[in-house]
This record gives sequence, structure tokens and C-alpha cells, in this order.
Amino acid sequence: MARTAGSHSDITGPKVREAALKLFARGGYAAVSMRAIAAEVGVQVGALYNYTPDKQSLLFDLMEGHMSDLLAAVQDDLSGSATARLQEFVAFHIRFHHARPDAVFIAYMELRNLTDDNFKRIEALRGQYEGGLERILRDGVAAKEFQIVDTKIATLAIIAMLTGVNTWFRAGGRLSLEEVTAQYWEMVRRAVT
Amino acid sequence: MARTAGSHSDITGPKVREAALKLFARGGYAAVSMRAIAAEVGVQVGALYNYTPDKQSLLFDLMEGHMSDLLAAVQDDLSGSATARLQEFVAFHIRFHHARPDAVFIAYMELRNLTDDNFKRIEALRGQYEGGLERILRDGVAAKEFQIVDTKIATLAIIAMLTGVNTWFRAGGRLSLEEVTAQYWEMVRRAVT
Repeated sequence: MARTAGSHSDITGPKVREAALKLFARGGYAAVSMRAIAAEVGVQVGALYNYTPDKQSLLFDLMEGHMSDLLAAVQDDLSGSATARLQEFVAFHIRFHHARPDAVFIAYMELRNLTDDNFKRIEALRGQYEGGLERILRDGVAAKEFQIVDTKIATLAIIAMLTGVNTWFRAGGRLSLEEVTAQYWEMVRRAVT
Repeated sequence: MARTAGSHSDITGPKVREAALKLFARGGYAAVSMRAIAAEVGVQVGALYNYTPDKQSLLFDLMEGHMSDLLAAVQDDLSGSATARLQEFVAFHIRFHHARPDAVFIAYMELRNLTDDNFKRIEALRGQYEGGLERILRDGVAAKEFQIVDTKIATLAIIAMLTGVNTWFRAGGRLSLEEVTAQYWEMVRRAVT
């Protein structure tokens, strides 16, 4: 049976989140109204409020969803050497973030627009992800594979370097993502040994 | 002679740019009105239009001013070794960006809100800055001080890594900016040799 466009049953979580992600990334959270999000989904704004209480909840859902996906996808095969685990982390981080430019952009840019409580929850998830990399670095130091003065700082430096690929890499350019990944891995490997 | 608050003579470039910088960094360009900027300066919005034609010009002025300051401040002593020049670049980049968190934030975040022409002009300035670092790397490769597969990629990786300090470093924390700089330099040095 055909549905009326804009009926409540059309409002699905993924559609709303997709619309919010697109508009937040394009214009910035503060400039986007619930009305604009509803229009992007193709429903009345009242119907949108049936799905989400407010814009802050939508922003938090997006950022928490991104971090949860990240934490669910990252793997760390503890049976490998720290060097092998670090190489896998580098390739994973570049691949995962390259596939989600809008979510990555928002994850960094819109932290300022989270309420204090929501900010703390996102920061905790981010800390968990960073902790995974730091564990690899610490294991590598313990195994004498790596030589690092401060594994916390090395963690932050490596993540910033890898995430930076998103600001310049475009598919179809001079180098493939695999070639770029190989070069970043070589720089990371040298930086810690 | 006392001036009337809000008279045209009160509108100075630095005051307007300071207000715009603060509000753009806090709320995002798209969410900030000329009226809000005028209120922050303490003048009527009409007076603001005597100083600047529109909000886009203000954003461009801020970003161009930031890049011009950066290009004016960076130095490259060609008489030194490539290693010494790179060390100086690392310390300069961290120090300069740490002192201007709002301008750095806007320089990355609000690229999406520049008109095409303005975007190209900012990108050209950014390319000029990156070119300075790449020249050091190329000279180091030629002098066999460095071993780098692709100096362009190494340039982008190093800049992303160094700029990342702004996202986490806070004065008064566990480490001073000088200690952090020393550790970043060590990682950069190893990454290119």
C-alpha cells in the first residue's frame, strides 16, 4: 500500500540522521534549524519532533553513532607484534575516516556545540579509541620494538597526522588511498622507532 | 574630547575583526549575523556596513589576515642545514598556531563558507606556506639528510600533526609547550630520516 509522503511512518532514524549530518556539515550546527532538517527529510517539523526531542539530541546521536561505529570496527589482534598491530591501526584509521568525511568533520568541529554532559560522553568514547592506539605503543615500548618518550603524546600526534588525510586526499588524484596509506605507515613506523 | 559611543570613528578594523573572530569561532560563520557582530563591537549595524560591505568580506579578511601573518612570521634560514631548518619550522608552527586558536579553528572550519574566488585566494596562501616546508624537505633529500618518498605528502602529514597540538594542549598541564615541541620535533625528525 502506498504511503502518504511525510506520514510519521516515513520518519526513520537513518533518514533523519542522514539529513542532519548533511546539513550540519554544510552549514554548521548553529545555522541549521529543525525546520530545515524536516524539509530535507521531506516531512513537517512536527513529525520530526516525534522522532527526536531537539537538535542537540540529533547532534549527540550523530557524534555518538560515529564514535560507536569507530569503536566497533577497530580491531587489535593481540597475537601480532606491536609493529604489525600499529600498521593495521594506521590502515584502519585512514580507511574508516576517509569513508565518512562529513561525520569526521562534525566530530571535530561541533564539539563546541555539545552540552557539557554530552561533551563528556563523546570525550570518553574518543579517549577509549585513543587508548587502543596507546596500548599498542606501550606494548611496543615494552617489547623494545618502539622507542617513544611519551606514548600519550605520540598517540595524539599519530591520530592528528592520519586524520589529516581527510583534508586533502581525493580519490582519482595522483595517488591511490593505498599508496597514501603506505607512505603514512612508513612515516609513523619511523617516528616511533 | 569624549566621543559618543557607537559613532563611526569608533569602528576600527581591529575591533570589528576581533568581534567577528570571536563570534565565528564560538557559533560558526553561518549562524552569526552582521547585527550580532555590530552588537559585539558596540555599534549599530548600519555603522558596521560603513566599514565592511558584508559578512563574506569579514570572513575573508580574517582568513587572509591569518595567512598573511603566518607568511610574514615564518622564517627559513637557508644558511643552516635542512635538519636545523626543519627543527626551526616545527617550533615556529607550534608556537604560532598555539597563540591563535580561534584564527586556526576558523582557517580550517570555515573554508566551506568562502566564495569560490575567496577560497582560491586562501588556498594559494596556504600552498605558499606548505611550499616553504616542502622546500626544506626537498633540500634535505638532496643533501642526503632526509629520506622521503614523496615530499608533498610528508609536508601535509607534518603540518596536520603539528597543528593537532591545538586540539589538546592546554598551558598549565602536565607538559610545557617547549617540552611538547621537543617531543614533536623528535617524531618529525625520525619520520623523515
